[in-house]
Amino acid sequence: MAVDTAYVRMPEPIIASVGASPLGRTDLPGRDLFSVALAEAFDELPDPADVVEAVYVGSQSESYEHQIMYGTLLAEWAGLRHVPAERVEGCAAAGALALRHAVKDVRNGEHEAVLACGVEKMTSAGTSGATDALSAAFDRAIEQRSGVTAPSQYALLAQRYLHETDATERDLAEIAVKNHANAARNPRAQFPKEVDVETVLESNPVASPLKLYDCAPVGDGAAAVLVTTAELAADLDCPQVRVAGSGASANNIAVAERDMTDIAGARIAAETAYEEAGIDAADVDIAEVHDAFTVCEALLAEAVGFAPTGTGYQSYLDPADRADGWTDVQLSPSGGLKARGHPIGATGLLQALEAYEQLTGAAGDRAVEGAETALLLNEGGVADAVTVGHVLTTAEAQ
Amino acid sequence: MAVDTAYVRMPEPIIASVGASPLGRTDLPGRDLFSVALAEAFDELPDPADVVEAVYVGSQSESYEHQIMYGTLLAEWAGLRHVPAERVEGCAAAGALALRHAVKDVRNGEHEAVLACGVEKMTSAGTSGATDALSAAFDRAIEQRSGVTAPSQYALLAQRYLHETDATERDLAEIAVKNHANAARNPRAQFPKEVDVETVLESNPVASPLKLYDCAPVGDGAAAVLVTTAELAADLDCPQVRVAGSGASANNIAVAERDMTDIAGARIAAETAYEEAGIDAADVDIAEVHDAFTVCEALLAEAVGFAPTGTGYQSYLDPADRADGWTDVQLSPSGGLKARGHPIGATGLLQALEAYEQLTGAAGDRAVEGAETALLLNEGGVADAVTVGHVLTTAEAQ
Repeated sequence: MAVDTAYVRMPEPIIASVGASPLGRTDLPGRDLFSVALAEAFDELPDPADVVEAVYVGSQSESYEHQIMYGTLLAEWAGLRHVPAERVEGCAAAGALALRHAVKDVRNGEHEAVLACGVEKMTSAGTSGATDALSAAFDRAIEQRSGVTAPSQYALLAQRYLHETDATERDLAEIAVKNHANAARNPRAQFPKEVDVETVLESNPVASPLKLYDCAPVGDGAAAVLVTTAELAADLDCPQVRVAGSGASANNIAVAERDMTDIAGARIAAETAYEEAGIDAADVDIAEVHDAFTVCEALLAEAVGFAPTGTGYQSYLDPADRADGWTDVQLSPSGGLKARGHPIGATGLLQALEAYEQLTGAAGDRAVEGAETALLLNEGGVADAVTVGHVLTTAEAQ
Repeated sequence: MAVDTAYVRMPEPIIASVGASPLGRTDLPGRDLFSVALAEAFDELPDPADVVEAVYVGSQSESYEHQIMYGTLLAEWAGLRHVPAERVEGCAAAGALALRHAVKDVRNGEHEAVLACGVEKMTSAGTSGATDALSAAFDRAIEQRSGVTAPSQYALLAQRYLHETDATERDLAEIAVKNHANAARNPRAQFPKEVDVETVLESNPVASPLKLYDCAPVGDGAAAVLVTTAELAADLDCPQVRVAGSGASANNIAVAERDMTDIAGARIAAETAYEEAGIDAADVDIAEVHDAFTVCEALLAEAVGFAPTGTGYQSYLDPADRADGWTDVQLSPSGGLKARGHPIGATGLLQALEAYEQLTGAAGDRAVEGAETALLLNEGGVADAVTVGHVLTTAEAQ
């Protein structure tokens, strides 16, 4: 139902600062990974306690660290005591959910400065522990007891995608090659190294047609994003990126209930974010999409309107070589989940960090020239069981 | 920092309908407990899919049911597919956090109708499993590894409270007696039976000075609360209760870092809610506070401004017999966590349900005459590690 009551929207929220911990296998517990991310975000700012008014944390800490109330814990770790603080959970979309709450609080005038953060200490659980933790995202009554894992679920989507389109396993492998090449220029990446397509194609099978190099890695990591009003960001002398739109959607948990190649939740989340931002898909210069597996990048390129149906797998090609109807967008300049890394609860905020650096001229060797508008697309569960999209723009863009 | 930009607030959110499952040991999994609660809430309403625009779920389902993305799951269970849906977590305060998000979304014009629900399937874990799940609320680095449990932490607060005040173990026992008497008139209660003070005093020691009957029980349960605009509630012909104020706060997780008898998080959350509602503590007629242990009711009566410091334990007395400075408030007419029941993620919404029934004339034998204003105070962790307060009023009250 449409809301027809008069409503005066506050000025658009601003991302004023970002920080991240090292990504991959680390010796630090989650709270210390957070501290590293926070220290970077506040390196040139006043003490967090003098700025931050509320804290949202995206994390699956209940599984990985036997720790609930992570919002309270990290607020305390940041030197805050009596501020609203909570953990939000939507599997791998938790980071973007935290960002979305921060954006809403600033947009609605509840706070001037909100900290959105994400933390995951995946390696504490070991490989089988991580597999078990991730399996909690599948329907316990229908799916978990059959023993499905994340790769086996995504393999169903990949099989179907290869059946319905002209895409080949080599095309999916080329997406991994492209994302590794991007990560090689990203000092934050978990895997900052190039790989060739034969390496991907010859890597160990995980769940056919997905091979090891089609899969995003397990890893630790934390990210912190400070969302403020434009006035406060200016007072703090921060480079600014506008959060022009935010959308959220979902799909059924159980894959059996879905059209496997129509990622409707992502389409709705992106379209909502575009509409709020007053843009079209064609206006997006860069996008960080949720490539938990290579096939996701192909599916999402179609769902969010970058590519005609059945051609999303061409994301690795130069724009001039893609099928008619493709936009000029560059996908996953960070290296994506595949090669930048994918610490579940932190991923959505690492996407925001990449866009912030790209749009403020801080992306170094991996800078996408002329990028002014970014789409972030963060998902939880298999594909779009939880989906959150954000549109970010440079402070100048309108 | 104060927000100084002009901001037009939307009309106050309305609680339009409520429902709950049976409470206690049940044979149903969480999703079916939710279905029972939803069915009651929508008994006289259109299909949820025709009304609800977003879903928030308070739950610790990750521990109790190995299920994350519970927001998506329950949205699906309600017949919704592509709506924003997420799980919020703040231990036993998760239910009120879900309510708070629903309230914010309606107040800020994002949605006309939001479902706040809470579900906990505690008995699935067994007693030791529940103890383990609850211990995740303690600081893993400092507290968990010392083996503390919830009763042992609260016993520290109780010992200190008995040391600092004139309260006796018998006074705490009388709080349990009062709440059991209220529950005996509540058909929803897990323990709808009266107990005498000797039964409480002679019950098994759990963590001195707390005995079995000082402790809220483990139990299953679900609750659903529909938050809407006043216009929609009128269209749906629902009895209305206004959500006049909402406040959230926190305290350090580790009890070692606190003043044990100053529940500052609760004070701030309540004061914020009072301020939004434009009332004082003295205006509150009934309050559902978080009596996870009897001593909590005493501490909270002081923190939220009902009782002078050191006299909160008199909550079981008739107002005329309480110390000077006490208000006339009636605490926990539902029977409270102690006797109504305390299914972690559902508790905050069961509090809202009780206030809704009291303020709409649907509380039957336990109705508090003339009640027009209610305070809900829901907490997670030990006392106020996460705290959320709401002020509800009758539709007529201003």
